[in-house]
Amino acid sequence: MMAPVTPAWIAVDWGTSHLRAWAMSASGTVLAQAGSDRGMGQLDRAGFEPALLALVGDWLTAPTPIIACGMVGSRQGWVEAPYTATPCAPLAAPLVRAPSQDMRLQVHVIPGIKQLQPADVMRGEETQIAGFLAQNKGWDGVVCLPGTHTKWVHVSAGEIVSFQTFMTGELFATLATQTVLRHSVAAEGWDDAAFDTALADASARPEKLAGRLFSLRAEGLLCDLSGAAARARLSGLLIGAELASAKPYWLGQQIAVIGAGALARLYVTALAQHAAPATQVNAEAATLSGLTAAYRQLKG
Amino acid sequence: MMAPVTPAWIAVDWGTSHLRAWAMSASGTVLAQAGSDRGMGQLDRAGFEPALLALVGDWLTAPTPIIACGMVGSRQGWVEAPYTATPCAPLAAPLVRAPSQDMRLQVHVIPGIKQLQPADVMRGEETQIAGFLAQNKGWDGVVCLPGTHTKWVHVSAGEIVSFQTFMTGELFATLATQTVLRHSVAAEGWDDAAFDTALADASARPEKLAGRLFSLRAEGLLCDLSGAAARARLSGLLIGAELASAKPYWLGQQIAVIGAGALARLYVTALAQHAAPATQVNAEAATLSGLTAAYRQLKG
Repeated sequence: MMAPVTPAWIAVDWGTSHLRAWAMSASGTVLAQAGSDRGMGQLDRAGFEPALLALVGDWLTAPTPIIACGMVGSRQGWVEAPYTATPCAPLAAPLVRAPSQDMRLQVHVIPGIKQLQPADVMRGEETQIAGFLAQNKGWDGVVCLPGTHTKWVHVSAGEIVSFQTFMTGELFATLATQTVLRHSVAAEGWDDAAFDTALADASARPEKLAGRLFSLRAEGLLCDLSGAAARARLSGLLIGAELASAKPYWLGQQIAVIGAGALARLYVTALAQHAAPATQVNAEAATLSGLTAAYRQLKG
Repeated sequence: MMAPVTPAWIAVDWGTSHLRAWAMSASGTVLAQAGSDRGMGQLDRAGFEPALLALVGDWLTAPTPIIACGMVGSRQGWVEAPYTATPCAPLAAPLVRAPSQDMRLQVHVIPGIKQLQPADVMRGEETQIAGFLAQNKGWDGVVCLPGTHTKWVHVSAGEIVSFQTFMTGELFATLATQTVLRHSVAAEGWDDAAFDTALADASARPEKLAGRLFSLRAEGLLCDLSGAAARARLSGLLIGAELASAKPYWLGQQIAVIGAGALARLYVTALAQHAAPATQVNAEAATLSGLTAAYRQLKG
């Protein structure tokens, strides 16, 4: 039988489609971790407390601070944690307490960040940026956080100066599964050369993107383009178009890419094609580091 | 009681999501019309004959020539009518006979057209172009056929010289209903100014498109962007990007836009913003005219 886990606090990353939790010691060591698919997207307001208790109830022997980031703080989340406006430090605003029946749950939600002009929003990425900055004091440059909604964030003097969101990940998934391209794009498989060619093409001539997409279908019909090559090419086209559009962010800057392994590597590779070296940062480590920084702020 | 309809032949437009039929006199007058939602997309090979009989069975007193265009001739259709390669006249290849149990059905399918380099395909649009050319002898220029998959087609000396497909219609529908933008884009409503601004922006800076899409969501959250304005702006962004990409087609050319009323008008308006005057052509009239031209070729 395993020894019971008795965390000093619990770190929670609660996005649209996932819920992850870590039992933490006072010194910041991970004692245990757990996850479920009960993301914000499938919960109504009353559903958050039971979802969290189902995941971490065994860790709770006393009232326990819980620090949560992500969509859990959105208007449709457990409690709305209003956005802080840029320019601001990633953890500038006070945490927002989420109400709970179970008195062992002392849930504090990290507010997201908004930019008013051009309008943009983030929830969760501010925590990863805080975590990255906690481990890289004084770092200035541009942070790229690839995902469903990729963010490019200009960071200077410990503050988020500006940022822009690209729907690249969601575009890829939607085009590959919900449009006519689903007949030509495989669910798995890859082709490095197809990715590289498409990336270069879309970066150099982004205005051509609208006309490139259907070619995946046409070449599937007429030229036996493989499903794996089509998949890599679609990814290359979309990331290439994003890089072209985000060029004012990354050109001539120090760059850190915070993301899950394979996707972050794609972005680092793509930036290298543009002679823009980027450091790859583990997303989970950045999230945990950011949640830890927020916990320490709370404890003062 | 209505007099029975006894057509000399039947015109059929059979796409992915629709089936339309017209009972025609020998001289080309429409005697009756009918339609259903039994498009190619929901039928297997054995389903085409029953679907057609259900729609036009009452018109059949004797063996009757039926001329059909569209996805009915695709590999997943009633019979595969192999593509003709460009450059070619829109009705250059012989019609392909579809097999049937019911001897009253004499179904002839119009082959689609392919372009080998860059790879592209069309099925159905060649018939509309043939119809347009039948009514505009000797016309040279560029035909735009907006729809789920918009085609830009260079026509010269009665032939389709080259063409390119843009997934603009499918992109619009997918982004508006299957992505995070569904929370911000209304199912109906419109805002001319929002369309015009987005069109001008995307046409002038198409490389920025990838970063413009999420702004619809962010402005919905932060700036109370209305669902109708978001809908018009999404359309303007996508059509603007298409016009930028298709510029080598339309710049300095005589242009005809063949399409359903509202969508064709949008394209004519958009082209006018670029000082490119375009003639709007009724899509159904062009389809019928093209099917009639194919029928006359068959009869010799």
